[in-house]
Amino acid sequence: MNTFGHLFRVTTFGESHGPAIGCVIDGCPPGLEIAAEEFAHDLQRRATGKTRHTSARHEADEVEILSGVYEGRTTGTPIALLIRNTDQRSKDYANIARQFRPGHADYSYWQKYGIRDPRGGGRSSARETTMRVAAAVVAKKWLAEKFGIVVRGYLAQLGDITPNAFDWNAVEGNPFFWPCAVQVPELESYMDALRKSGDSVGARVNVVADNVPPGWGEPIYGKLDGELASALMSINAVKGVEIGDGFASVAQKGTQHRDLMSMQGFLSNHAGGILGGISTGQAVTASIALKPTSSLRLPGQSIDIDGNAIEVVTTGRHDPCVGIRATPIAEAMVALVLIDQALRHRAQCGDVGEVSPRIPGMDVGAT
Amino acid sequence: MNTFGHLFRVTTFGESHGPAIGCVIDGCPPGLEIAAEEFAHDLQRRATGKTRHTSARHEADEVEILSGVYEGRTTGTPIALLIRNTDQRSKDYANIARQFRPGHADYSYWQKYGIRDPRGGGRSSARETTMRVAAAVVAKKWLAEKFGIVVRGYLAQLGDITPNAFDWNAVEGNPFFWPCAVQVPELESYMDALRKSGDSVGARVNVVADNVPPGWGEPIYGKLDGELASALMSINAVKGVEIGDGFASVAQKGTQHRDLMSMQGFLSNHAGGILGGISTGQAVTASIALKPTSSLRLPGQSIDIDGNAIEVVTTGRHDPCVGIRATPIAEAMVALVLIDQALRHRAQCGDVGEVSPRIPGMDVGAT
Amino acid sequence: MNTFGHLFRVTTFGESHGPAIGCVIDGCPPGLEIAAEEFAHDLQRRATGKTRHTSARHEADEVEILSGVYEGRTTGTPIALLIRNTDQRSKDYANIARQFRPGHADYSYWQKYGIRDPRGGGRSSARETTMRVAAAVVAKKWLAEKFGIVVRGYLAQLGDITPNAFDWNAVEGNPFFWPCAVQVPELESYMDALRKSGDSVGARVNVVADNVPPGWGEPIYGKLDGELASALMSINAVKGVEIGDGFASVAQKGTQHRDLMSMQGFLSNHAGGILGGISTGQAVTASIALKPTSSLRLPGQSIDIDGNAIEVVTTGRHDPCVGIRATPIAEAMVALVLIDQALRHRAQCGDVGEVSPRIPGMDVGAT
Amino acid sequence: MNTFGHLFRVTTFGESHGPAIGCVIDGCPPGLEIAAEEFAHDLQRRATGKTRHTSARHEADEVEILSGVYEGRTTGTPIALLIRNTDQRSKDYANIARQFRPGHADYSYWQKYGIRDPRGGGRSSARETTMRVAAAVVAKKWLAEKFGIVVRGYLAQLGDITPNAFDWNAVEGNPFFWPCAVQVPELESYMDALRKSGDSVGARVNVVADNVPPGWGEPIYGKLDGELASALMSINAVKGVEIGDGFASVAQKGTQHRDLMSMQGFLSNHAGGILGGISTGQAVTASIALKPTSSLRLPGQSIDIDGNAIEVVTTGRHDPCVGIRATPIAEAMVALVLIDQALRHRAQCGDVGEVSPRIPGMDVGAT
Repeated sequence: MNTFGHLFRVTTFGESHGPAIGCVIDGCPPGLEIAAEEFAHDLQRRATGKTRHTSARHEADEVEILSGVYEGRTTGTPIALLIRNTDQRSKDYANIARQFRPGHADYSYWQKYGIRDPRGGGRSSARETTMRVAAAVVAKKWLAEKFGIVVRGYLAQLGDITPNAFDWNAVEGNPFFWPCAVQVPELESYMDALRKSGDSVGARVNVVADNVPPGWGEPIYGKLDGELASALMSINAVKGVEIGDGFASVAQKGTQHRDLMSMQGFLSNHAGGILGGISTGQAVTASIALKPTSSLRLPGQSIDIDGNAIEVVTTGRHDPCVGIRATPIAEAMVALVLIDQALRHRAQCGDVGEVSPRIPGMDVGAT
Repeated sequence: MNTFGHLFRVTTFGESHGPAIGCVIDGCPPGLEIAAEEFAHDLQRRATGKTRHTSARHEADEVEILSGVYEGRTTGTPIALLIRNTDQRSKDYANIARQFRPGHADYSYWQKYGIRDPRGGGRSSARETTMRVAAAVVAKKWLAEKFGIVVRGYLAQLGDITPNAFDWNAVEGNPFFWPCAVQVPELESYMDALRKSGDSVGARVNVVADNVPPGWGEPIYGKLDGELASALMSINAVKGVEIGDGFASVAQKGTQHRDLMSMQGFLSNHAGGILGGISTGQAVTASIALKPTSSLRLPGQSIDIDGNAIEVVTTGRHDPCVGIRATPIAEAMVALVLIDQALRHRAQCGDVGEVSPRIPGMDVGAT
Repeated sequence: MNTFGHLFRVTTFGESHGPAIGCVIDGCPPGLEIAAEEFAHDLQRRATGKTRHTSARHEADEVEILSGVYEGRTTGTPIALLIRNTDQRSKDYANIARQFRPGHADYSYWQKYGIRDPRGGGRSSARETTMRVAAAVVAKKWLAEKFGIVVRGYLAQLGDITPNAFDWNAVEGNPFFWPCAVQVPELESYMDALRKSGDSVGARVNVVADNVPPGWGEPIYGKLDGELASALMSINAVKGVEIGDGFASVAQKGTQHRDLMSMQGFLSNHAGGILGGISTGQAVTASIALKPTSSLRLPGQSIDIDGNAIEVVTTGRHDPCVGIRATPIAEAMVALVLIDQALRHRAQCGDVGEVSPRIPGMDVGAT
Repeated sequence: MNTFGHLFRVTTFGESHGPAIGCVIDGCPPGLEIAAEEFAHDLQRRATGKTRHTSARHEADEVEILSGVYEGRTTGTPIALLIRNTDQRSKDYANIARQFRPGHADYSYWQKYGIRDPRGGGRSSARETTMRVAAAVVAKKWLAEKFGIVVRGYLAQLGDITPNAFDWNAVEGNPFFWPCAVQVPELESYMDALRKSGDSVGARVNVVADNVPPGWGEPIYGKLDGELASALMSINAVKGVEIGDGFASVAQKGTQHRDLMSMQGFLSNHAGGILGGISTGQAVTASIALKPTSSLRLPGQSIDIDGNAIEVVTTGRHDPCVGIRATPIAEAMVALVLIDQALRHRAQCGDVGEVSPRIPGMDVGAT
């Protein structure tokens, strides 16, 4: 199950410290222009090593297109993308090969397979998400060209800090994807103190997809929100997913939650753009909770491979808050769900034209 | 996409006011004893019409086994289950056939298919979940017999009321699945007032699966938590899913969140029994947010099929809080995910024996 | 794996002597008119009990539509079809419950599941194919309405008898689907003698799909011919599948086999309308070999459930040549493959318009 | 649909003249020893350029393992294999970029995608089958280690030449995989004359899998024979597939065809080791028809991209009989089907032990 999607299918492979990581995109519509350079922007947004607030590992993340593109356009055959790993330091992990780090996938992989690649977390490393971001570059481009869809996200909470204001223009101007520029120094101090302490912290990331047409999503088990949930939950460290108002809905009344309708637009967007598993034409909104990183310099009680009680101290290079770099990954998963549902929708409902009455996707402050 | 699961596959069919609802369970292990009577218990837990706090619709929910069982045991061929609908009142819905109810799937189905069955919500009705519960009776039985797994849930929040105490024994003793018996009168008064007001309210349901062995779940895209997320999000009205500490993880430090390990057991269960998408051997815990029902007697602004502005008032028979009956449905979805992952795990890793060191699944207060 | 197809998915259930057989069609395009009466024609073509040349079992094969159709049109939700079994004679099978019939699936089912339903062959009975034919009624109608596609077949060999002439108009005028009317008395005498002898015989059925547009089929593993092969091989008793010239290609030269091209049409159709797994716009042609029925009155050496050597004599009601009724089943499987590929094609390639130059699908004598 | 299999999933990518070809094997059982050197043997059996009877293209076919193997053993995570293309001569194809070769996939790809990579046939080239053979090296090894299964094939017909005798030991001793050593000079002369003539010829390849346990295969749509049919039909140039007696069954009587049973073994193997879609424990036998290559030096009538009538002459490097190299490819597809069914069988039926009575898989002359 290293394949994601039903019609636009992405299969990723590779370990953190193996020779390479890569993916195969199968089912991409033909005729889309794509060049190796186009992957750089989102890969850089996800990359470590750019500021002191993330892991010091520095990878070039240079994408080689191995197949599926001819004279600059997709041919409809599988697009294989390859990135060589260049900055492994496997010796950092020699001592943890026989230890289980609390809160990490070491123990569960070991119990499942009876073997694991301990170097840099092997397959369970966030390094794998590089290829999700790469694959989503193709998805985002098609969604934008065909439907004008824009998928973008931001950091909505860091530990207990929340934004004081919201401005999309601020988001890309700081290494945290934070929507309030004046708070950035506060975040930097917070992260500096955290890093010094040896501890880590959780985060929340929000994603908004604008211009999603109504009608996408397969009701019952292939619901748009159901697939967003698994897609987002599949990101390393994610422990919760919300659509629209999410858990706030628990304490709401029906009169508060239901989005009233007019021919000028919906009057609110508590639903997050999805009703009955199908998009409504409003912005699709999702929010995720990321747990604090488990790889800490602070010692923790654990066991080793022989069943001995031990104290684990993780040295290697790690992010004190994985949420900081999670924004492009969350966007990627949303984009991959959307393109897959778009193709599935036109497969089944390609005979249905534009249905009236259609409510415009008026922006009601999705954030 | 009315099929759920990869190896233990459940396909449901049927509309709220059609002649029947049913499901086909494909891939069930052979040799399991199952009788038509065994479905009654969980179906009654899910049924409406038992107390004044849920919809007044009264269905017998009598299950006919059409195939796949021979002399009381599953044969490995598809098990078809059929329930005839007996208490439809489609005339209640005559006026809403041309209206779109705010917060309901009317509009999104219409936009997707260009046609919809308006009687009782058609396919988008919670009536469909009856068959999920029925299918999960088979799953729960196999999981219990093979692994001693117990999947059970409870109502963890109703509007802004939360339990004052927790006792599994209380849960099945009241119509709300509430874990604190002394609060039941309070809940009844709350629901009476709510019903009288014509409004509805949201709820939170928690599910716990005990005795899940370590090693279940397919890392990356078929993660155990990822599949729980989509399974639970696919339940009508669900807007959020958490695994373990869920959104509380956002404000936690790594030293708080990581579950320390000893050969006597994990020392906590913030992870909800899943690390890297694979079960750890601890209790698997999940929590869901259910939005308040959208079908209200209180008028709401909307449009009709001709694009006219209207006020919608929903009369029919509806639940003022769908969360009340959601506990068996949530349990069902968790059980269906678990049996599917169990089969997938032994497919790939059937050659791997019990791996040492193995930590016992000590109970650390999963609730 | 009782589900067929990727987007137009048909799941069948039921045993030969169970209470009912049925299917669920998921992914059907919405808006297609369909009524219960429309299933009768093809089901009657497939039915036993109409002439002395097939099994004497007489089933009404009355279809009940349980879901997915509203006011006579498909809604896009799953269409469940149900047929009650009415003419079981399970007592006929009492003695074979503990015996393995040579050439039958008794032994292989027993080895797989450790349990089997012996009544009438249980799930392995050709009774199951009833629901394939029913599901294909929907597929054929959509293919005809959208593309003018006609899928039709005929008996191309019975034992060692082959047609002396070919006329589509003859095919539906005799119980054998034989394309040469003057040979029908010869076939009848042949079958009478065969039945009297207690033996059975094999057959060949050809299927032709006219008006399939170019471009359908997914190259490599989801090839149109590959999927036709598995679809046709999945029919009971089929031992071989050919596309176009099939095994005759072995002794051909390239200059003989390749279909020369002109803007007026292809000059021949050795390829059977498929190149590289993708339709060319010519008629799609396939041929299948059906083995002789294994259930014979003539005794055969075998074993029983206790490992004793026995002589098996099958009494029950059986077809001396299953190939006689196989024509509508083969058509059904071809139609199900085509609609699924049609939906998959427009999912991926919906942006590609009609591509020039396009060669007309000139008829070159597909038979 | 460039992925093959349900649980042991192989995704291939790459074009004939692209930078590389590769595959990702997902779902492989963990703990299997595998080294890059082990791929060489079967890849060399499939390779061109070794004798004058196949295409002159010479590829090193050096496999790089990019992931999924740690310290020489599979880890259960995806195994990515990469082979760089080293002997492309794309300029050979400059003139056919605007022409459609009769009998080739040029026209059908163009109609499907509106774009195609003409260099060496692009994705439709037999070069893609290299990765099938590579993936099957892993499958064959697991099948051999776990069950003693041996999958092997041979050329059973070349044009109208058939073997005069059968000896497995002869098969690997000549470049044709011919089972009768004394005929090899005859085949060489035949091929020399054919090559000189500029024409091509068809072939038949047989595959036998010994030691397949009873019980593998999913009845109805996931039948073992059904999946073999699509797997084998998916090989380039295949136009027909037979299981067991195949098309010979058409003229057989039931008393001839049915395989009588004894506790010492089946008395014959007309069924090809499969009944009701499930293996019986006998050798699984399949046979395929390969059409003559379409790329000929002899001119053929066709059209170009502008719709002009043209004469096509193919120069490039081509096989005059693709069947010669097809044996390892056919073996590969059979092995991939078997491992997938093996995993699926233990998923569903892992609780069923060895079922008695079990007939030994006595060899009855499968060839």
